[in-house]
Amino acid sequence: MFEAKLVSASTLKKIVEAMKDLVTDAPFDCNENAMCLQAMDSSHVALVSLRLDAGLFETYRCDRTVNLGLSLANLSKALKCANNDDSCMLHYNEDTADNVTFTFVDPKKEKTQNVTVKLMDIDSEHLGIPDQSYAVVVEMPASEFQKTCRDLTMFSDSLNITATKAGVVFTGKGDSGQSVVTYSTGTSGDADDDGSNRVSIQVNEPVNVNFSIKYMNMFAKATSLSERVTLSISNDVPVVVEYPIEDNGHLRYYLAPKIDEEEEME
Amino acid sequence: MFEAKLVSASTLKKIVEAMKDLVTDAPFDCNENAMCLQAMDSSHVALVSLRLDAGLFETYRCDRTVNLGLSLANLSKALKCANNDDSCMLHYNEDTADNVTFTFVDPKKEKTQNVTVKLMDIDSEHLGIPDQSYAVVVEMPASEFQKTCRDLTMFSDSLNITATKAGVVFTGKGDSGQSVVTYSTGTSGDADDDGSNRVSIQVNEPVNVNFSIKYMNMFAKATSLSERVTLSISNDVPVVVEYPIEDNGHLRYYLAPKIDEEEEME
Amino acid sequence: MFEAKLVSASTLKKIVEAMKDLVTDAPFDCNENAMCLQAMDSSHVALVSLRLDAGLFETYRCDRTVNLGLSLANLSKALKCANNDDSCMLHYNEDTADNVTFTFVDPKKEKTQNVTVKLMDIDSEHLGIPDQSYAVVVEMPASEFQKTCRDLTMFSDSLNITATKAGVVFTGKGDSGQSVVTYSTGTSGDADDDGSNRVSIQVNEPVNVNFSIKYMNMFAKATSLSERVTLSISNDVPVVVEYPIEDNGHLRYYLAPKIDEEEEME
Repeated sequence: MFEAKLVSASTLKKIVEAMKDLVTDAPFDCNENAMCLQAMDSSHVALVSLRLDAGLFETYRCDRTVNLGLSLANLSKALKCANNDDSCMLHYNEDTADNVTFTFVDPKKEKTQNVTVKLMDIDSEHLGIPDQSYAVVVEMPASEFQKTCRDLTMFSDSLNITATKAGVVFTGKGDSGQSVVTYSTGTSGDADDDGSNRVSIQVNEPVNVNFSIKYMNMFAKATSLSERVTLSISNDVPVVVEYPIEDNGHLRYYLAPKIDEEEEME
Repeated sequence: MFEAKLVSASTLKKIVEAMKDLVTDAPFDCNENAMCLQAMDSSHVALVSLRLDAGLFETYRCDRTVNLGLSLANLSKALKCANNDDSCMLHYNEDTADNVTFTFVDPKKEKTQNVTVKLMDIDSEHLGIPDQSYAVVVEMPASEFQKTCRDLTMFSDSLNITATKAGVVFTGKGDSGQSVVTYSTGTSGDADDDGSNRVSIQVNEPVNVNFSIKYMNMFAKATSLSERVTLSISNDVPVVVEYPIEDNGHLRYYLAPKIDEEEEME
Repeated sequence: MFEAKLVSASTLKKIVEAMKDLVTDAPFDCNENAMCLQAMDSSHVALVSLRLDAGLFETYRCDRTVNLGLSLANLSKALKCANNDDSCMLHYNEDTADNVTFTFVDPKKEKTQNVTVKLMDIDSEHLGIPDQSYAVVVEMPASEFQKTCRDLTMFSDSLNITATKAGVVFTGKGDSGQSVVTYSTGTSGDADDDGSNRVSIQVNEPVNVNFSIKYMNMFAKATSLSERVTLSISNDVPVVVEYPIEDNGHLRYYLAPKIDEEEEME
């Protein structure tokens, strides 16, 4: 049996909304420590990696490792039935049925709502992603990253990121115009704010990389999940865009850089 | 002459919005006691029955019975011109013209706005609907009924309602999943609320009936009209979905049950 | 060099949104006193005339007269990158490049955002529009004018304006209905309001003119720019619809009357 209860259904709702444009069929691997998911997007360009630690849940019980294959479209439909204040219990009993039941409860109402979603057979291809150190790590407000990606879409399909000790620069160049957003290091922290707006930049080596801005915009749908986002960047290796989930998990996106993306505009 | 004044144009606006997806041409029967309307939807599956008592209006004068045939699309356009705080005077003079004039007045502004809508010849087929007693009467918050219908649409075209002494259960089953919402009797009223969230269920005999969920969703557009909705249900007869209008009238929808709608999902 | 700084990018954003459905390619004429623009709409029915006085800007420097040809679609994209609280610096240096740079700065953030838009060759056809006196001048809340135009669209493609000493009447007549909005003179100003809702009407001679309501609705997109709008009307000459811009400029629309637009409806 697998049974896990979230205090708020909205957490799971946001996670599913942040993944469902990239991934259609999701194999959730559940063990005693965590629910995990790894999936490539349909064009095999980006990788989504989700980890929800047992500590994220109010109650969590996983008797033995199970793999729950769910259509994210159906999962999204199921979660649309939950109000944001509802708690959400996931229930799977391998003896009885090939489906997962979500129970949404609003303690203020005398009703129970059970939504049952059919399971699917999904080939799970769990890639071992080595922990590695990156040339540059940028940590910034998630909403700031989202706005920068959206702005750079105006004139370009491609996002250039350069980072040096002086700061990080996001550039989108096109035939009719370009947009450049610069965050400088050094000046951070001295304002009267609480640091929540700060952009922190660790630079071991300078980087200069290009990415598809379309994917970055899809990743930025996770903005509602988390106040902050971390970009881990090295030349010629996939960037990691990570959204922490309430200190008990994360949603990570991996995207390989574009090659030969040196467009000019003067 | 027929002349009637509503304190707020928004009442009529909500009524028209709640009917116009079902009914295109509306024959309003006006007599000294009330404005009434009865119309089948275009596929002759659902019946809409509206009654606006004279008491709903600030002033009401109907010298003799008149039938005003109006296109609900045109009526909706006319009412879109009213601000919600405007009063609304309906005026029809059979001697002068084949149209109805709506006068919208905002006492705070030095303007008058007259919107005139052409009348149509519409065959009025006023069915005598006998008052009858129903096996089950469910009274619940209109917004709760709306959400339940919307949720059950996720996986199904069909809404099953079963009610027993224990409570009422709304079920929508489909191939990829199902949604079940249960309201139990007995525990109601003991909470610290004022009863406005209560679901009250009177059961004379148990019922088990299936309806087209598409129509239920159209009926639920009347949610803005009224805090509460009443469902009157018996096996094998049309359900009545009733929204009271400020204690001076009602908007009722009648819908025949679906036959042979026993779908399975395990 | 041309350089001008607006305290708030939102002013320019609103101006561009108010023009971009009418005008695609905009030739901005900049001299030491003002930035100006004159352009016909693509069907050569309406004329847009914009004037932004140097006083509207926090800083303004124009060494010699320049003409900046900009695609309003690209300008709109550039301005979408600005938050409403950002300041906006326009910069053009004729020696170095054929583009204009917009710099958006939010003083609370440690970032700078430069958006560069390519210039275009646009034939500028600056018409000398003679100052003239009009038979009727109506000044009214911009939002009131917008709502009246929108309401009259319900039943008609055409807007009739008649004005006499008694007041001004806007009429839209169609086959299925009509809408008439009347503002009367004389009673204005005696209410307890501050005059901001007042409709003031100066009548030298009565007028009775018809206009395309589609264009009026496009003009009314400037409503966000200004609290008040002024209509200057004479029989058989183009109406002027003017939105002042913070006492330092204006956005004016000119539209020729429709001929033979006497439609009847009884």
